[in-house]
Amino acid sequence: MDIQVSLLLTGNELMNGDIIDTNSIMFAEQLNNIGLSIHKKTTIGDDSEQLCSEIVQLSQSADLLIINGGLGPTIDDLTSPALAQACGVDLHLEPQAHLHLKKWAEKRKIMLNEPNLKQAYLPRGCKIIANATGSAVGFSMILGKCLILCTPGVPSELAQMLKDEIIPNLQQHFPEVTKPSIYRLQTFGVGESTLQAIIDDNLPNWSKDLTIGFRAAMPLLEVKLAPLNSQGVKALASYQQALNLLLGDHILHIGKSDKTTIAEYVVPLLTKSAQKITVAESCTGGLIASQITAIAGSSAVFEAGYVTYSNDMKTKMLDVPSATLTNHGAVSEATVLAMAKGALEKSNADYAIAVSGIAGPDGGTTDKPTGSVWIAWGTKETLQAKYHYIPLARRQFQQVVAARGLDLIRRMLINSKERPNYERSS
Amino acid sequence: MDIQVSLLLTGNELMNGDIIDTNSIMFAEQLNNIGLSIHKKTTIGDDSEQLCSEIVQLSQSADLLIINGGLGPTIDDLTSPALAQACGVDLHLEPQAHLHLKKWAEKRKIMLNEPNLKQAYLPRGCKIIANATGSAVGFSMILGKCLILCTPGVPSELAQMLKDEIIPNLQQHFPEVTKPSIYRLQTFGVGESTLQAIIDDNLPNWSKDLTIGFRAAMPLLEVKLAPLNSQGVKALASYQQALNLLLGDHILHIGKSDKTTIAEYVVPLLTKSAQKITVAESCTGGLIASQITAIAGSSAVFEAGYVTYSNDMKTKMLDVPSATLTNHGAVSEATVLAMAKGALEKSNADYAIAVSGIAGPDGGTTDKPTGSVWIAWGTKETLQAKYHYIPLARRQFQQVVAARGLDLIRRMLINSKERPNYERSS
Repeated sequence: MDIQVSLLLTGNELMNGDIIDTNSIMFAEQLNNIGLSIHKKTTIGDDSEQLCSEIVQLSQSADLLIINGGLGPTIDDLTSPALAQACGVDLHLEPQAHLHLKKWAEKRKIMLNEPNLKQAYLPRGCKIIANATGSAVGFSMILGKCLILCTPGVPSELAQMLKDEIIPNLQQHFPEVTKPSIYRLQTFGVGESTLQAIIDDNLPNWSKDLTIGFRAAMPLLEVKLAPLNSQGVKALASYQQALNLLLGDHILHIGKSDKTTIAEYVVPLLTKSAQKITVAESCTGGLIASQITAIAGSSAVFEAGYVTYSNDMKTKMLDVPSATLTNHGAVSEATVLAMAKGALEKSNADYAIAVSGIAGPDGGTTDKPTGSVWIAWGTKETLQAKYHYIPLARRQFQQVVAARGLDLIRRMLINSKERPNYERSS
Repeated sequence: MDIQVSLLLTGNELMNGDIIDTNSIMFAEQLNNIGLSIHKKTTIGDDSEQLCSEIVQLSQSADLLIINGGLGPTIDDLTSPALAQACGVDLHLEPQAHLHLKKWAEKRKIMLNEPNLKQAYLPRGCKIIANATGSAVGFSMILGKCLILCTPGVPSELAQMLKDEIIPNLQQHFPEVTKPSIYRLQTFGVGESTLQAIIDDNLPNWSKDLTIGFRAAMPLLEVKLAPLNSQGVKALASYQQALNLLLGDHILHIGKSDKTTIAEYVVPLLTKSAQKITVAESCTGGLIASQITAIAGSSAVFEAGYVTYSNDMKTKMLDVPSATLTNHGAVSEATVLAMAKGALEKSNADYAIAVSGIAGPDGGTTDKPTGSVWIAWGTKETLQAKYHYIPLARRQFQQVVAARGLDLIRRMLINSKERPNYERSS
């Protein structure tokens, strides 16, 4: 049976170009994972009548209608009254939603005000969907044959609610749907077009029954194999094996993952081996440290980071000899090695990453153009440094430098004997 | 007259989460600029029947229907036959489109193949819209009272066509439309619901002719006033003034802005006054430094950052007395003041921010629950510290702490005499 899924997104900010809709990507991915696909997406502004009429119309042709947005405390949050009108019921102070709000306010030591309280006035007869992080609960109704889910527009709240509540509930509600057999790889260090070229060279007779897809989550890349039919399902295993061999240690993880930085792979490896890391950052300016410390429990593996942006501070904070800076420059092998050495000595960490480069847009020279960077990495005994050329915009440059530095440590921690693709191409 | 504009986006890649829809942002901005706004967006996959039925349905309620995508050479490009079917005409080899294709191929020194040629088979009676860059021309039809425009999905081709052809033509087609007057404020420190409550308290008789909208770009918030009609345009000035007074120095900028961190406001202020800043970070772990150094030219105002994650490193790197840490704990007024003092002395900066708190999820106590943080800020002469309670998930907590620290410096730099809302509520 083909289940008709409709998505109804609301919010003026989605209509006037103020924000990019990323929530529907989240819905598509999560629903596809359990074998559901969206047949139609409708997006409208904050207009109660239009919202009500769309709900009525869409619910007539859909088995599942997901409404996103409009649950907040302000007057342009209209989902609850519009749904009540569409279903011909009234709004009432829903006890479970009210309790949730009171607890939410209590935890934050704030008084519930009128706008807040509005979020607990819900269509009579709805079922509550818990919101673990935000003030607005979700809720569901049945209209005709259509299951309607109302979900929050705040992406972090939506992500949590999808994972904890909606996806498990939908699997129960539509037991006839089967999960597709999709193979995913989380990778770093091979670009999309390079990967396509590697595949063209090594697997020229690619099966027509199997699609390969890429999802760039800069600087990480997800590779996805999806069978189109039962032939594709049969072919999957041999293609999995071939891809695994071709990608080697560029593979961070086999399967799905919500990790977005290499630090999320490095911290658990360090924790497991009870070792510590330090960072000495010039051109990344604290980004590597902040990616490490964004991870809960990172204090077990990280004590200190040195953001030495000026030459003077490289000397003062990390004992980089002035002569090294004068003779070789700040962006040099000698400087990053001295920075890493200084950081290891001062922090007593086991591993160090040190980076110095030209993030731009200004500061480049003929010898050292914008995008040049030296990365040092290793332990006291194994410290080494390599030159990289990464001609990207400033923030992307910083992201890639941070990722490569951390990836080089990850490769040490897994005892990789391979050379990463980005070393070959620099 | 209110002109109803509908947007119909087609393509499987928009349905399965493989790409983010940025074209509709482009449409919204360009149309808003000439006073048109999109009332409804519909997105569907590559399905000819569904496409035809949506065209018929949407054209009945819209004055303008813009179809985006499906003009390409492959079998899943279905816009032309679907529109022909919807309009009850046949497809024919359109001479102007054919000529365009021949020139396009000539320029690229390639032979036109069957799939390419498909792009010149268009609904009989359509008008061609020139495509300066791509192979597929756009085209328009009238169905009932609705003007239908078919546009390419490739963003660069669409951008060019909008600028050169569509926008000038629409201004001629809808001469009655006038440019809107929208008022935007970039703010920090007042949440959406608090702001709504402030408005409810102070401006209880809010004009019906004027909408207020919020766009959360965590942790910043954009507030937007949009008149709904000529009455709203008249009311705008007095509401602008009232909002400016109510929000005071919570306003970062009047007008549009693509800035996403407070650092982007602080760095230009420091640059202007030729002063420098340093940061001593515990719970934010380098985030403040990385937000500062993400900005081009920040080396003029930032030399050093100290990521002192452990107690030991607070002493080693910043000379925080061990006795202070033992007697008051790492999360205390005395500790952040000592961290800030140490950072100022070691870096020779003019301003410092120092933060120490419990980002969680573990590490909280009854006295100092997760979400507790001390922030110190100021110059050598004006250093002070305040306790904040920010019970958010780890990364959001870090983002808000960074933003508040930087905002406190921003307020010093603009000589603010006001107390921020977040100081009152902590």
